[in-house]
Amino acid sequence: MVKRSLAIDAMGGDKGPSEIIEGVSLALKGCLKEDTFFIVGNEQVLTPLLREKSLLQNEHIQVVHASEIIEMDENPLKAIKRKKDSSMMRALDLVKSGAANALISCGNTGSLMAGGTIKVRTLPGVERPAIGSIIPSNGCQYVLIDAGANPDPKPEHLVQNAIMGSCYAEATLGIQNPRVGLLSTGTEEGKGTDFIRMVHGSLKNLPLGVIDYRGPVEGFQLFENHVDVVVCDGFVGNILLKTSESLFEMIKSVLKEEMTATPIRKLGAFLARGAFIGMKKKLNPVAFSGAPFLGLKGNVLKAHGSSDRFYIAGAIGMAREVLKKDMLSEIQRKVELANNKNL
Amino acid sequence: MVKRSLAIDAMGGDKGPSEIIEGVSLALKGCLKEDTFFIVGNEQVLTPLLREKSLLQNEHIQVVHASEIIEMDENPLKAIKRKKDSSMMRALDLVKSGAANALISCGNTGSLMAGGTIKVRTLPGVERPAIGSIIPSNGCQYVLIDAGANPDPKPEHLVQNAIMGSCYAEATLGIQNPRVGLLSTGTEEGKGTDFIRMVHGSLKNLPLGVIDYRGPVEGFQLFENHVDVVVCDGFVGNILLKTSESLFEMIKSVLKEEMTATPIRKLGAFLARGAFIGMKKKLNPVAFSGAPFLGLKGNVLKAHGSSDRFYIAGAIGMAREVLKKDMLSEIQRKVELANNKNL
Repeated sequence: MVKRSLAIDAMGGDKGPSEIIEGVSLALKGCLKEDTFFIVGNEQVLTPLLREKSLLQNEHIQVVHASEIIEMDENPLKAIKRKKDSSMMRALDLVKSGAANALISCGNTGSLMAGGTIKVRTLPGVERPAIGSIIPSNGCQYVLIDAGANPDPKPEHLVQNAIMGSCYAEATLGIQNPRVGLLSTGTEEGKGTDFIRMVHGSLKNLPLGVIDYRGPVEGFQLFENHVDVVVCDGFVGNILLKTSESLFEMIKSVLKEEMTATPIRKLGAFLARGAFIGMKKKLNPVAFSGAPFLGLKGNVLKAHGSSDRFYIAGAIGMAREVLKKDMLSEIQRKVELANNKNL
Repeated sequence: MVKRSLAIDAMGGDKGPSEIIEGVSLALKGCLKEDTFFIVGNEQVLTPLLREKSLLQNEHIQVVHASEIIEMDENPLKAIKRKKDSSMMRALDLVKSGAANALISCGNTGSLMAGGTIKVRTLPGVERPAIGSIIPSNGCQYVLIDAGANPDPKPEHLVQNAIMGSCYAEATLGIQNPRVGLLSTGTEEGKGTDFIRMVHGSLKNLPLGVIDYRGPVEGFQLFENHVDVVVCDGFVGNILLKTSESLFEMIKSVLKEEMTATPIRKLGAFLARGAFIGMKKKLNPVAFSGAPFLGLKGNVLKAHGSSDRFYIAGAIGMAREVLKKDMLSEIQRKVELANNKNL
C-alpha cells in the first residue's frame, strides 16, 4: 500500500482558507488510516477554522505553520524568491523532503510551477514539466498536455509530454493504452508547422509499448472522442483551455438570457431545470479539478484559483489516484524506454 | 459608386450547385442595377438550375463555363496545377483580370488560398495572405486573424495581420478604430513566447493612426468584448476556430440530450423553443459567413464548405460590404504607412 500524505496549501486561491478546509473535510470521508493531510498556512488563521469543523484533534490532520502568502497576481519568480516562508513554498518543502507524497494548491500557477521545478526538480530524462489538464467532453474526457507550463518548448519536450500525458490518462481516467494525438491543423502528415512535423516524426519512431500514437488530430476532433490524450505546446494549450472556458461561459450566459426573455420561456426553463444541472455535471465535473505538473519528481497539483470545497475535494481525490497507481514510476520507466531508443 | 461584380464558384462546397444558386437568388433581392454575378461552373449543370429559379435571363447573371471541379479532399497544390479549367480557377481568373471585384467559394480552402496567392497575388508590401474570420460573441463580434492561412509566419506577418484585421473589422463590423489585441498566454508584457514578445514590440512601435493596439489578450477575454480584432498565427487560429466549433457542437448535443431525457424536460424545451432559435441567431449568424484571404490584390472570400443558401447569401453580403468600403485601398494605405516607418 502506497503511503498517502498530502500537503495542502491552505492559503492560496480566491475563496480563502475556510473553503479549502471545507474541501479537506469533505475529502476526509473516504480516507484511509494511513492518510495524512498537512494543512500548510498561518496557524492563527487555520486553528479556529479547523476547530469549527472539529478537525483540530483529527488524527489525519497536521498543521504546518507558514507566515506568508503568495498572492494570485504577484510576479511568480519574485514571489518565490522573497517569500520563503509562504504556504506554497513550505508545502513544496514537504514534497521535497518526502514527508508529503503530493501537494495541492489553488494559488499562483507561475509560482507553483517555478517553485516546484526548483525545489522538487524534474524526473531523470525529463527536461521541462508540463501541465496535464483533464477536459470533459460528452460522456468522456481527454487529457490536454501541455496546458500552459512551457510555452516555448523544443520538439523533444512534446515527445515527453506525449508519454507523460499517456501515463496520466491511464492513472486518472483508467484507460488502458490511451490513444495519443498530436494537435495540428489537419490530420494529414504534412499539415501544421515545421515544429509539428518534427514532433510527429519522433512520436512515430518511439519504441513499441511506450504510447499508442494515433497521429495528428485537428480542432474539430477535440470533443468527438478521437483520442484520449491531446499533445500540444504550452502556448497553444493555455490559449485553448482559456478560450474554451470563455466560450463555455459565454454560451451559458446567452442561454440564460434567452431562457429568461419571456414568461413562457421561463416556465420552460423551470420545467427543464434538471437538464441544466445534468449539463453542469457532465461539462464541469468536480472529479477532475486538479491539474498536475507532470515530469516533476513529486506530485504537485494545481487546482483552479476559484475552486470551491467540492472542486478541492475532487483535486484531493485525483492526487490519491495518481499515488495509488504510482504514476511517477510509470512515467519514469517509459521516459527511460524512449530516451534509450534515442541514444 | 464602386462597381460590384461578384464571381461565384458554383461547384464547390458540400451541398452542391443547387444550394449555391439558391443563395445567389436570395442575394439578388438587394442588388443594385450595376451588380453582376458571374456564376462559374459546368454550364450543363447550371443552366437547368438557373432556369428553375427563373434566373436564366436575369440581367445580373452571367454564366462562365468551367469543365472541372476541385474536390474538397484533393491535395490543394496538385489540384490547382492539374485542374486549370476548374470552377475555382476560372473564378480566380475573373478576379485576376479585373472582370470580377470579388470571389466567393465554398470549396477546398487550401486550393483557394494557393490559387488566390498565385493568380491574384498579394498587395505591395504584404508578404503572405491571412484569413480573417468573424467570431460571434454575446451581442458582438470580433475578427480572428489569421484563422489558418499561414501556420508558420514571421513576426512581420503578424504585424500585417493586425493592420489587415483592423481594416476588415472597420469594413464589415462598422467599428471606427477597432481595438486590436495580440493573442498570448496572459495580458502582461513578458508572457507568451519569444515570437509573441517580438510581435508585441513591433505593434507598439507602429506609427500613430495605423491601428489602435491594446496589447496582449488572453483566452479568457476572447468572448468578453475586450478587443475587436484578435491577432494570432495561422496555426493557433486554425486550432482555435475548429476547437470552438467542436466545443459548441458538443455543448449543443449535451443540451439536446439533457433537454429530451424526460417528458417534463421535453415539455420545458418546447415552451422555451424560442430561446434555442435566439441562441442560434446570436451564435451562428448568417451575416458573417464569409472569410476573406486578406492581403491579396482582390477580394477572395471563403465560405464554409457546409454553407446553405442563407450562409451563401450572407457571404455575398459581406463581399458587397468590403467593396463598398473599398477595404483593399485602406489596407494598402495603412500597410504602406507601417512599412515606411520601418524603413
